[in-house]
Amino acid sequence: MTLFSTQPYKGTRDFFPELKKRHNWMFDKMRSVLGQFAYREYDGPMLEPFDLYAAKTGEEIVSQQLYWMMDRGDRKMAIRPEMTPTFARMVASRLQEEPKPIRWFSVPNLWRYERPQRGRLREHWQLNVDVVGGDTVLADAELLLLAVELFRSFGGEKFLQIKVNSRKLMDLLFKSRMGLDETTALKLSKVIDAKDKLKPEVYAEKLTELGVSDDQISTMEKFFSSDMATIQKDFAGEAAVEELSSLFATLKELGVPEGCVVFDPSIMRGLDYYTGVVFEAFDVSPDNNRALFGGGRYDNLLGLFSKNSISGAGFGLGDVTLMQFLETHGLLEELPNDYDIGFACLGREAWLVCQKKSAELRQRGHRIYMPLDYETSMKSQLKTLAKLDISKVIIVGENEMASGDWTFKNMQSSEQKTIKADQIAEVIS
Amino acid sequence: MTLFSTQPYKGTRDFFPELKKRHNWMFDKMRSVLGQFAYREYDGPMLEPFDLYAAKTGEEIVSQQLYWMMDRGDRKMAIRPEMTPTFARMVASRLQEEPKPIRWFSVPNLWRYERPQRGRLREHWQLNVDVVGGDTVLADAELLLLAVELFRSFGGEKFLQIKVNSRKLMDLLFKSRMGLDETTALKLSKVIDAKDKLKPEVYAEKLTELGVSDDQISTMEKFFSSDMATIQKDFAGEAAVEELSSLFATLKELGVPEGCVVFDPSIMRGLDYYTGVVFEAFDVSPDNNRALFGGGRYDNLLGLFSKNSISGAGFGLGDVTLMQFLETHGLLEELPNDYDIGFACLGREAWLVCQKKSAELRQRGHRIYMPLDYETSMKSQLKTLAKLDISKVIIVGENEMASGDWTFKNMQSSEQKTIKADQIAEVIS
Repeated sequence: MTLFSTQPYKGTRDFFPELKKRHNWMFDKMRSVLGQFAYREYDGPMLEPFDLYAAKTGEEIVSQQLYWMMDRGDRKMAIRPEMTPTFARMVASRLQEEPKPIRWFSVPNLWRYERPQRGRLREHWQLNVDVVGGDTVLADAELLLLAVELFRSFGGEKFLQIKVNSRKLMDLLFKSRMGLDETTALKLSKVIDAKDKLKPEVYAEKLTELGVSDDQISTMEKFFSSDMATIQKDFAGEAAVEELSSLFATLKELGVPEGCVVFDPSIMRGLDYYTGVVFEAFDVSPDNNRALFGGGRYDNLLGLFSKNSISGAGFGLGDVTLMQFLETHGLLEELPNDYDIGFACLGREAWLVCQKKSAELRQRGHRIYMPLDYETSMKSQLKTLAKLDISKVIIVGENEMASGDWTFKNMQSSEQKTIKADQIAEVIS
Repeated sequence: MTLFSTQPYKGTRDFFPELKKRHNWMFDKMRSVLGQFAYREYDGPMLEPFDLYAAKTGEEIVSQQLYWMMDRGDRKMAIRPEMTPTFARMVASRLQEEPKPIRWFSVPNLWRYERPQRGRLREHWQLNVDVVGGDTVLADAELLLLAVELFRSFGGEKFLQIKVNSRKLMDLLFKSRMGLDETTALKLSKVIDAKDKLKPEVYAEKLTELGVSDDQISTMEKFFSSDMATIQKDFAGEAAVEELSSLFATLKELGVPEGCVVFDPSIMRGLDYYTGVVFEAFDVSPDNNRALFGGGRYDNLLGLFSKNSISGAGFGLGDVTLMQFLETHGLLEELPNDYDIGFACLGREAWLVCQKKSAELRQRGHRIYMPLDYETSMKSQLKTLAKLDISKVIIVGENEMASGDWTFKNMQSSEQKTIKADQIAEVIS
């Protein structure tokens, strides 16, 4: 028989206990911050109708990256490549009864058929945070504040820069200033979004293909190099600018450090459904220049499900990206050992006594490592306990069974002392 | 445009925040007990090669229930219908370096194309617990002890009965006592496993089809009605019986209540890979007679991946089944509210002041509900806070902004009092 490979499917990861523990640590830390901001966790099924993604998710993802199948009832189902359609469906089904704002988050695993490369996998986990309803500026400000606090909880806020732009402002540029139609504007936004990945001559070529004139290009270039003050002057009185100004003012009043959240008119975001503020976060250190997370405001979230409309905003933060960020900056703090104490025992009677003592200690919440045989030599048992980095060990061999006193060993200092069985709880703490 | 349904895919669930919180509560409680027993969490990818399941998982699941697809590289991939093949693959890849026993658990979501009915869904979550290596009797005893403790952590151990049998003992019955060949023995075991779902005449017919004689049937019937003492006499000296006797003796010595884990020679377990002790747990109350969980010992876990062999044992406990059990017995304790305190504020200045105070309180770990606009009437804000069951509320309106004193309201007693901003932390605790 040919043996199967022990490797996981290409582009996916096995979460052995050390990695799973790190993963839990990372998301639990964020769960705790999210709880402080009154966000509540939700989840949905792994499969949704294919057409749900075909309707809203970008073309590239649907035609090239979606995992899908016909189910046995001939429904075309896809494994979720993003969480927003599920979120929208769930919000739509509860829109009336749920108090506003709706503040929800989720940590789904998402699937895309990608060519695996650094930072891109076929299966990854993504924190999704959304707020629906409420004053848009206050909600946008809260979301950005929350994002900063998520990074602060890891000690990483000083490496974080969130670049903010507005789709409404881009609309003004593309339509009123450059005189482009809807379709050309959309296509142009995709070209600009991909600019960093294109050679300058390819970028120029693509603009020519779209029929963008030199005059239009220079209008655009001037816009992209504008700071907030210039924009405020050039677009004075426009709602898009007032919203952005109010957002930055609010963030300043709330004490968000300058330089942490900045205006950047070149931020586009690939997804089609954003209609207001958009943002993308970067690592300020040159070692790690990938986008950390991105998001924005959408006004048509519920469009596929309901005639009601409500405005929302959200962002998504992937586990691979975050892990790389934390590694780059040495922010993966050492995690505590999984065991409070370990036993080493020889002979059936000793094993039974230790197992009964363990039961008592477990009742108090202690995490106990018990051997699963009583014939292995003490030396070999201690070797296993050392390999597991267990620092406190109780030894119960023949002598201990005879005397009724147990031996406590500190594995770091190699110090040993005799203790009574009822002193173990003390020794642990 | 036709609107999409807001319902989740048939046989799956939307986890709205209340349900997700309950789910987290249920699994976190078990995670904590598992940690006390030194079990470590792992996870693996949602997709594995189809052939992995075709090789080991039961025929019915593979041909009728598997969700699978060809990926864009022409690999036939399946959504995991069970966790054991992933577990086996991961253990095989680390067999040499991992200290034994390997004690791992996981909480995967699993998919089977089932006709949805009470207790059976297409997507469910399942706690999987496995121990690999160690003395088999001690490991089996630990696993049963752990299962009892999991139920005790919910206050449900008194409703739990685990019925234990041994595949080796069945082998003795089928082969030495009844004289059946391997194939007939396997088929017979499936018929017996399904007995409760079959009409008596269908059951009898199936036995006849297998060529089981009246004599053989009476040998079998006698066996099924035997208690442990009879089995010990009838199969004296056989390893299978010695193992079972030693297991029950160990459980007794460890103080597992009699009646909680019992011998039952009719327990078979459907899956083919069990080779030693098998068990199935039931709710003793007649209101809820479905199997709660089941498991057993397997000696060929690594067979598909490696020429090494090692013995392991494990069990799986589904979320739907457990939730029904807890509901039936009123064991779903009330969960704490998600918010420590809520703010109600009028006017931009008040909102900013409250948001800044909230930031301070969040730093201390408190969970704060802030409104996302400052123009809604106080009455309406308080109504929202009441709907969210928030019991402690800080009110900051015009008067409070003018005087610098804030109003604290206890929403249960409707009592109000004036406090200073720096007294809020006290009020929370």
